[in-house]
Amino acid sequence: MNPQLLKKSAHLHGPVLIVGTGLLGASIGLGLRQRGVDVYLSDASPSAEAVATDIAAGVPVADAPAEFAPELVVVAAPPDVCGGLVAAALRTYPHAAVTDVASVKAAVLAEVRATLGDDVGQLRRYLGSHPMAGRERSGAVAARAELFTSAPWVICPHDHVDPHVYRVVTSLAVDLGGVVTTMEPAQHDEAVALVSHLPQVVSSLLASRLQDTPAAALSLAGQGLRDVTRIAASDPGLWVQILGANAGQLVEPLEGLRADIDRLLHTLRAPAAPGARLDMAQLIAEGNVGQARIPGKHGGPAQQFAWLTVLVDDKPGQIATLLTEIGGLDVNLEDLRLGHSAGLPVGMVEIAVLPSKKQSLVDDLTGRGWKVVA
Amino acid sequence: MNPQLLKKSAHLHGPVLIVGTGLLGASIGLGLRQRGVDVYLSDASPSAEAVATDIAAGVPVADAPAEFAPELVVVAAPPDVCGGLVAAALRTYPHAAVTDVASVKAAVLAEVRATLGDDVGQLRRYLGSHPMAGRERSGAVAARAELFTSAPWVICPHDHVDPHVYRVVTSLAVDLGGVVTTMEPAQHDEAVALVSHLPQVVSSLLASRLQDTPAAALSLAGQGLRDVTRIAASDPGLWVQILGANAGQLVEPLEGLRADIDRLLHTLRAPAAPGARLDMAQLIAEGNVGQARIPGKHGGPAQQFAWLTVLVDDKPGQIATLLTEIGGLDVNLEDLRLGHSAGLPVGMVEIAVLPSKKQSLVDDLTGRGWKVVA
Repeated sequence: MNPQLLKKSAHLHGPVLIVGTGLLGASIGLGLRQRGVDVYLSDASPSAEAVATDIAAGVPVADAPAEFAPELVVVAAPPDVCGGLVAAALRTYPHAAVTDVASVKAAVLAEVRATLGDDVGQLRRYLGSHPMAGRERSGAVAARAELFTSAPWVICPHDHVDPHVYRVVTSLAVDLGGVVTTMEPAQHDEAVALVSHLPQVVSSLLASRLQDTPAAALSLAGQGLRDVTRIAASDPGLWVQILGANAGQLVEPLEGLRADIDRLLHTLRAPAAPGARLDMAQLIAEGNVGQARIPGKHGGPAQQFAWLTVLVDDKPGQIATLLTEIGGLDVNLEDLRLGHSAGLPVGMVEIAVLPSKKQSLVDDLTGRGWKVVA
Repeated sequence: MNPQLLKKSAHLHGPVLIVGTGLLGASIGLGLRQRGVDVYLSDASPSAEAVATDIAAGVPVADAPAEFAPELVVVAAPPDVCGGLVAAALRTYPHAAVTDVASVKAAVLAEVRATLGDDVGQLRRYLGSHPMAGRERSGAVAARAELFTSAPWVICPHDHVDPHVYRVVTSLAVDLGGVVTTMEPAQHDEAVALVSHLPQVVSSLLASRLQDTPAAALSLAGQGLRDVTRIAASDPGLWVQILGANAGQLVEPLEGLRADIDRLLHTLRAPAAPGARLDMAQLIAEGNVGQARIPGKHGGPAQQFAWLTVLVDDKPGQIATLLTEIGGLDVNLEDLRLGHSAGLPVGMVEIAVLPSKKQSLVDDLTGRGWKVVA
C-alpha cells in the first residue's frame, strides 16, 4: 500500500461533518479518522447514526462544541434528499465547504439552486462529487476506510465554485485514495448512464428472464451467464433512486438498445432472408468494437492479455502452490479466474499475463509438472 | 486430476472418425488419442485437416484401411452443414453410430430427417449431442484434450435411437470428462437460448453502445461493466451460425426482454409519476430473484459465499504469498477476483469462502499482517 495515503492532508484539516451515515458516509468517516481528522456525524435515523458512532466513524454532531464550524460538510444521503441537505448545510455553516457524494449530479445541483433561490452567493461553497465505489452490502456495518482506494472519484464543478472549496473537496478525494477526474454535472450523468446505469439495467432485465426457467436449463449455465448477471444481485432500494434521478440521461441509450433489439428480432424472425446473416454478424462485430474500448486495469488502455489454463485438484492449497511458483518465476498476474466446473472435482485456473511472458510461463509450469493448457 | 479419466472406455473402442477438425473436433481427437482410441480425421478444408493432423489429433481418413468401418462418427462441423454431413455419414458407414456436437439440436435433427427421406431406418444410429465447452480462440491450433473436463455435455435423444448407439455416444462424453445431461432437442434449444444465446446477445448489444462513447466516460468504467461485456468479445463468425440456427427459440425471450425495456422506458420518461418508483424497484427485485437461481460452482445449488478483500502491492508474488498462507490455514477458496483499480499500484484480492470459515480467516490474515477488509 502507498504509505503516502496515510499522511495527513495538506488541505483538509477538519473538523468534517458527515450528513448521512450509510455505507459511503461511514466509510468516509473511517478514512478521515485514520488520517487524524476530527469527524462529526449526523443522520436522520438515530439508529444509523448510532451504528456509525459505534464503528468509530466519528462523533455525533450533538456532542460538537458550541461554536462548531466544520471546514467541510459531506452530504452522503440518498439522491432524493441530497440537494435539500446541501442547501441546509450551506446556510447552517456559513464558512464551510460543502460537497455531496450522490451518484447523479445535475439533479442535485438543480435542487440546491432551487432551494437557495435568491441566496445564490452561497453556491460558491458547494462542489458536488461522486466516488465510484460501492459494495454489495449497504449501511455503516459494511463501511471500510479503504472503500475508495484506487477508484475514480469524479469532481463536478459549476460556474461559481470558490478555488479554496475546490482544493478542500479535491483533498477529500485524494486523501481517501480516490483517483480524481473532473467533469461537468451533465457530462458526468451522461457518462454514468452509459457505463454504470445501463449495464445495471441490462443485467437486471436479463436475470429477470430466469425467474421461471426450469432448473434443468439453468444447470447448463456457464461463466458467460454468471458474468453478465453478477450485478443483478444489487439493492433495489438504492437503484430505484439512482434510476429515478438520472432517468433523463438513461432514456436515449436505452432507446438505442431497444432499436438494436428490434433490428435483431426482425432478422431472427426471417433468418434465411437475404442480408440476415450479415446483420447478425455485424451486431456481434459491433459488440467486439465497443468491448475493446473499455479501459483495462489501472485505467490504462484496454490491453489484450495472453491467457493460459492450469488444471488443479479442487482442494485447499493447490491454487496457492501454483501461484507461489508463478510468483517465483517473476511473472505478474494481470487477471485470474477460477473455472466454475459442474460435477467434477477438478479446478481450472485461468491466468492472464502479458503476451511476451506467456510461452516461457507455459514451458516453466509444464516442466514443473503442472497440467497446462495454453 | 481424476485418474479414471485416463482409463480406456468400457464402451468406446474405436476407430472413431471425426468430420470437421476445428476447435471441438480436434479437441475430441486429442482426448480420444490420449485414451488409446484410433482416430481418423476429415475436413472440407485440406489446411484445417493438416493442422489437426500436425497436432496429432488423428490420422487423415485418406490413410484409413480399405475396409474402414468406424465404430463412431463425430460430426463437428458448423450448424449450417451439420445435418447434411450426419446423413452422409449414416449412409457411408452403415454400422457406425453417428453423433454431432453442434450447439443447436432441433435444426440439425430436422435436416438429418429431411436428407434421409424414406431412409428413416438409418436414424436409429444418430444421436445428437452438445458439449457446453468453448474458448475465445477457434481452430485446431486452439484445441486441447481437456476442453470438455467438468463441462456439461448434453445428449439429445429422439424416438428412434438404438440403445447401443446411446451407450457409445454417452461413453464419448464421459470419457472426455463431460458431465452428461439428457434433454430432448427442442428442450435443449430452448434452454441454451436462455442461458447462452440471450446473454451473448445482451452483452454484445450493450458493448456496441460503447462504440462512440468518449474516452473520459469510459474511464469511469468499473468491474460491473467489464463483467457484463466480457463475452461481447466473442467471434462473429461462430455466433452468426448459432443465432441463425436457433433463431426460433431466441425470439420469445428477446421479445420478453424488449417488453421489459418498453415498460422501463415508460417509467423513465415520467419518473415522478405515481407508481414509477415501484415499477423500477420491481424491475431490480425481479433481477435479484432470477440471479439467485443460477447454480453455483460444481452444478450445486446457488450458494451465498462470504467475501473478504485483501489489499496487496501490485507486484509479482504478492497474491501467491497470500494464497499460500490461506492454503496453509486449510481454507478452500470458493471464488477469487482481482480488483481492477484505476491509477494506483494497489491490488485488491477478493476472496469468497464458506460463511463459516470467514471470521477465523479474517482474524488469521490480519494477525499475519495482511490488510483485510471484511
